[in-house]
Amino acid sequence: MRTIDWVDGAVEIIDQTALPGDLRVLRLHTVGELIAAIQSLAVRGAPALGVAGAFGVALAARVHGDDPAALHNAVRKIETARPTAVNLARGAQRAAHLLSSGPEAVLAEACVIRDEEIAASAAMASRGADLVLQLCGERPRLLTHCNTGGLAAVTVGTALGVVGELHRRGALAGVIASETRPLLQGARLTSWELTRAGIEHRVAVDSAGPFLMARGEVDAVILGADRICANGDVINKIGTFSHALGAHRAGIPFLVVAPESTVDTATPTGGHVEIEDRGAAEVTAWSDAVNPAFDVTPYDLVTAIVTDRRVIRVDRGERP
Amino acid sequence: MRTIDWVDGAVEIIDQTALPGDLRVLRLHTVGELIAAIQSLAVRGAPALGVAGAFGVALAARVHGDDPAALHNAVRKIETARPTAVNLARGAQRAAHLLSSGPEAVLAEACVIRDEEIAASAAMASRGADLVLQLCGERPRLLTHCNTGGLAAVTVGTALGVVGELHRRGALAGVIASETRPLLQGARLTSWELTRAGIEHRVAVDSAGPFLMARGEVDAVILGADRICANGDVINKIGTFSHALGAHRAGIPFLVVAPESTVDTATPTGGHVEIEDRGAAEVTAWSDAVNPAFDVTPYDLVTAIVTDRRVIRVDRGERP
Repeated sequence: MRTIDWVDGAVEIIDQTALPGDLRVLRLHTVGELIAAIQSLAVRGAPALGVAGAFGVALAARVHGDDPAALHNAVRKIETARPTAVNLARGAQRAAHLLSSGPEAVLAEACVIRDEEIAASAAMASRGADLVLQLCGERPRLLTHCNTGGLAAVTVGTALGVVGELHRRGALAGVIASETRPLLQGARLTSWELTRAGIEHRVAVDSAGPFLMARGEVDAVILGADRICANGDVINKIGTFSHALGAHRAGIPFLVVAPESTVDTATPTGGHVEIEDRGAAEVTAWSDAVNPAFDVTPYDLVTAIVTDRRVIRVDRGERP
Repeated sequence: MRTIDWVDGAVEIIDQTALPGDLRVLRLHTVGELIAAIQSLAVRGAPALGVAGAFGVALAARVHGDDPAALHNAVRKIETARPTAVNLARGAQRAAHLLSSGPEAVLAEACVIRDEEIAASAAMASRGADLVLQLCGERPRLLTHCNTGGLAAVTVGTALGVVGELHRRGALAGVIASETRPLLQGARLTSWELTRAGIEHRVAVDSAGPFLMARGEVDAVILGADRICANGDVINKIGTFSHALGAHRAGIPFLVVAPESTVDTATPTGGHVEIEDRGAAEVTAWSDAVNPAFDVTPYDLVTAIVTDRRVIRVDRGERP
């Protein structure tokens, strides 16, 4: 099962807003439909957004191939549909480089990006599992935040791919999935994926994570990233920073798993990244709210970043 | 308006499970009804629980006055209806000391406890506002967690009483109320109280607090306590510890406001306190969950504790 793919001339996605109740596939035929799906988080997760951006340009090339201004406008709208994860704009731009070669070349490039993310997930799962066992010893208990499984990538995922690999090795003693308010990607999506994989787990409210670490119930925190900056700062789902503070206090590893497509050495630090605020309605119906969808985890709280090509030991001074 | 009171031979409470939709008063005539209200959080908040415990013994004295075994059993059930806040058992025990003097003496003592909490709230509001201005300068922006207003006490409240006092002095530049999962005491109750008081505010998901502090949007964290240990460790609503980690990282004051009735010098450290787990159903319908309702904030993260009688500068080595 793939979260996102190109099928018979349209983009097909699993509608992540309908899970865990409904496993529903949406077919997106236009750039407008694709952008709406991105903005409603029907498709989400940094690697999946990179593929969505590329497929979006492939849709645009088919429709607007004879109208350079409309095409340029469509590509720009795709790139900027959400601001924080670097993958979206990067995937769109990479596909857009092929526009002069025609729609089929664009689509071929988008499919290459999809296939690269599939390969990246497999590589991260293996390398990440090795690192967890090296740092934590046998049968660690992990805490993960947001959703970093197959739903966030194309298949397998990033941090949750590592969890799955440890489970396959018989080397996992427990998983806590933080629920991830306001949209509950942990309680809805991660829990759904773990259940499908037969992996026992418990959900916790986001603010319980640091206390569970202090109580000695977690051996490492493992999660994904929406953008990794040149200095090692990690941009990820809101709550990542507070979990990093908890891990630091408890003296346990804080591990980030993300493909190279999420590493953005053109952005010097987390302070340079636009943090999307998704508005009050996601949080409460009763008052105004401040709703940053992401936060910045400074590099000094990060133990290591695992990509499809390397392990960056940030705690030892290595940088992306 | 009082959250809890004795009216015409019964305990009246505002049903906190119905807010903010309904402002509904429940009349509790029996110990069983009172315990059910405590366990469902229809009445909650450490100071309010102390009063509830005392009024519960007054109810028991009326019903079981001629049956010492039944009376003893009822008092024990009240004391242990919830384990974490020291106030509940303490209020019940204080009223129970008067049992040999008859039901009217018990009720009179319960009313004294109620009146002491009312006076304590007023004293904390004034002293706490002075301290905030001393530490933060003019017009601070505060972040508070859970509900510590009149609903958590009898009137006025603890930390939220300080917020209200700063507002009355024209000395408040902003309030962020963390929503407080799983039961949303912040989004439901604190927001409702702030709106009634005409205090502009924004709600944030619990895990956003540390990031908002890191971004420079908060001048101090101010919240309550369910138990304050001899070494200065603070037991309070889950999420308190992660907010304390955020405040420590941001270098801003972390202030605890609680009456002397919450100070428990017989408990040496936070590690000695039973942390209530309220079960998975409060958190998610889709999987198992771990649901500690409280956490332990170690004293080294606490700037000061404000009670109705003193300011304990924990950061300067003072202890309860």
